[in-house]
Amino acid sequence: MSKPPRGFEQSEFESRTERAQQLMRTDEIDAMLLTTEAQVRYFSGFLTQFWQSPTRPWFLLVPLMGKPIAVIPSIGVAGMQQSWIDDIRSWSSPQPQDDGISLLLSTIAELPRRFGRLGMTLGNESYLRMPARDYRNLETELTGLELVDCAELMLKLCSKKSAAEVEKIRYVCELASDSFNALPGFAGIGQSEREILCSMRKDLLDRGADHTPYIVSASGQDGYGDIIMGPTDRILEDGDVLIIDTGSVYDGYFCDFDRNYAFGHASDKTCKAYETVFRSTDAGFAAARPGATTTDVWQAMWSILEAAGARDNDVGRMGHGLGSQLTEWPSLTANDHTTLEAGMVITLEPGMEFEPGKLMVHEENILITESGAEMLTKRAPVEMPVIT
Amino acid sequence: MSKPPRGFEQSEFESRTERAQQLMRTDEIDAMLLTTEAQVRYFSGFLTQFWQSPTRPWFLLVPLMGKPIAVIPSIGVAGMQQSWIDDIRSWSSPQPQDDGISLLLSTIAELPRRFGRLGMTLGNESYLRMPARDYRNLETELTGLELVDCAELMLKLCSKKSAAEVEKIRYVCELASDSFNALPGFAGIGQSEREILCSMRKDLLDRGADHTPYIVSASGQDGYGDIIMGPTDRILEDGDVLIIDTGSVYDGYFCDFDRNYAFGHASDKTCKAYETVFRSTDAGFAAARPGATTTDVWQAMWSILEAAGARDNDVGRMGHGLGSQLTEWPSLTANDHTTLEAGMVITLEPGMEFEPGKLMVHEENILITESGAEMLTKRAPVEMPVIT
Repeated sequence: MSKPPRGFEQSEFESRTERAQQLMRTDEIDAMLLTTEAQVRYFSGFLTQFWQSPTRPWFLLVPLMGKPIAVIPSIGVAGMQQSWIDDIRSWSSPQPQDDGISLLLSTIAELPRRFGRLGMTLGNESYLRMPARDYRNLETELTGLELVDCAELMLKLCSKKSAAEVEKIRYVCELASDSFNALPGFAGIGQSEREILCSMRKDLLDRGADHTPYIVSASGQDGYGDIIMGPTDRILEDGDVLIIDTGSVYDGYFCDFDRNYAFGHASDKTCKAYETVFRSTDAGFAAARPGATTTDVWQAMWSILEAAGARDNDVGRMGHGLGSQLTEWPSLTANDHTTLEAGMVITLEPGMEFEPGKLMVHEENILITESGAEMLTKRAPVEMPVIT
Repeated sequence: MSKPPRGFEQSEFESRTERAQQLMRTDEIDAMLLTTEAQVRYFSGFLTQFWQSPTRPWFLLVPLMGKPIAVIPSIGVAGMQQSWIDDIRSWSSPQPQDDGISLLLSTIAELPRRFGRLGMTLGNESYLRMPARDYRNLETELTGLELVDCAELMLKLCSKKSAAEVEKIRYVCELASDSFNALPGFAGIGQSEREILCSMRKDLLDRGADHTPYIVSASGQDGYGDIIMGPTDRILEDGDVLIIDTGSVYDGYFCDFDRNYAFGHASDKTCKAYETVFRSTDAGFAAARPGATTTDVWQAMWSILEAAGARDNDVGRMGHGLGSQLTEWPSLTANDHTTLEAGMVITLEPGMEFEPGKLMVHEENILITESGAEMLTKRAPVEMPVIT
């Protein structure tokens, strides 16, 4: 597919803001105060790597009516001026005595009040990217405004992707799929995990990824025991299985999926585990449609694994949302019960421990459509690829 | 220089823990509860890209005596077992109803109490990587334990680097310096910022960087107007100045510095600005020694810029600490007044707006030594390099 255009039309941000404001009215929230990269970017389009610097806090206010208001360090003003945001207020940060808090308070004081409630993301899968002390002070100083949790509102809002968002995710899914398919051409016995992943990082760049914030690997004879720690300097040998999991990014949107490779030869038990987890993914895909729940999809995947004698594993779930973050709400678990809706992008990530300390994990990224689901990644090979 | 070994000796973590415990005794803190990637890694050595997933909270307790205790999602246990930590407690996460909080509370309840105070990083340059709701609940449930701020303790502790930490920073500074020096060989008029930075990402990988979480650029005729937003698709033309700023990583440690390049030719005013900021960096380096303050160094740099007629800029400071994060405490500002100590690694980052909308920013990374300071980056060229 051709490279999707960068950024979004202004209508995208208008639509996001209007959808948020509708939910805010339902939840009786006058304004949301947001602090994280994903949140600020969602409403403003402000896309920068500068969030790597943890020093300065950034704030975005989404009022019940009108455009969001940015309250940000002065270093970000030139960048924010390129966005659709008109009302940009700034202070010279870092300023330990008052790092934006008085400016934030005076900005909040100007907002119309209907419900007397200010939303911040306080609940599940949220954190505040600001000093907790300042959050507490804010609460004290916000006379006449109650601080309420809007985490669920934000998770739900961001979980439904627009067509333009889906195109970015699809693009990075496809180019990472191509890179995985090309991997046997640049990986082989005698190389280390680290060397192979370094080559794959470069290949992903060549194919059009902006960068790869996440690429991990694990390997071992017949299987691997962990999926979040690598790469290591371990040298691939005959009989090894290597898993690579990547979250690569195009224009601020992630893919998140993995592929498995055998080196030299693949043992029968490894092939059987691969085949089981492949079928489990198929079952999850077949169950994924609007109206089904995350738990329905989990159950469809788990029943295949269970029938094959799977042992439990420590991952804690078998898939999740994704988009502007590597992992987003909801989670595919035995008790999540979130109803899937068209526009959601999720991962299917069944995994089993088929022997003590030996895992087999597959992952694909899919879009929930009006009628079912669509694969965004190019489906993994039916049989375990063997690199000889 | 040769590639430093990965990881650390156990004595490194013992020493960090002992230094922390000494400060905790002074501050009358029974234990610290830490939640961020940098904090957990500092005491455990737990190095993973998995922090890209914001879903699950992670906790590390540093008691007044003995080793740290990890309270983490089960997905991380296999990885944490490779560390020096013995006491690893886990729960299957995500678990929206109780994502580790009851386990954390029962673990804290077992700790000896001498002062009745539990430290969390609540103040400047800190945030809690956990839901604010859970932090509030924790405070309520911690009967007989006062929650107190240990942000300053942690900032000061981490600011003094060990010899092993310095070697990692030095290594990534040197390889990024070499990459900047090689850039005229792969960048030219007619290429876009994005193409040049993509080439540099690959060059950094080839030279031994693990990855490059931060690489931004800006360009324009005679100068640039911003230093945190790029790269863009802007094509470099004759008369342009390009700045590239990178935070690349080796084994979890960052460099953070920039270089400037003219394309085709460099105008007199641009060369003059370059020369001024170069001299400003020299003045900062000369002022940097144990016992001097961050403000002394700032003043040394600013006096050169001011004498040259510099306009103010929006960056807010002219350097900062660095190490396991792109930017760390302290800041080089007019009113920071932090006393420099041997072992601190900081950036010198003087910048001036030499014409409306035209910036010139330089940056080097230095180590404060017993007798003065040492350059970790290979010093920028004395004269603006011109790529023809």
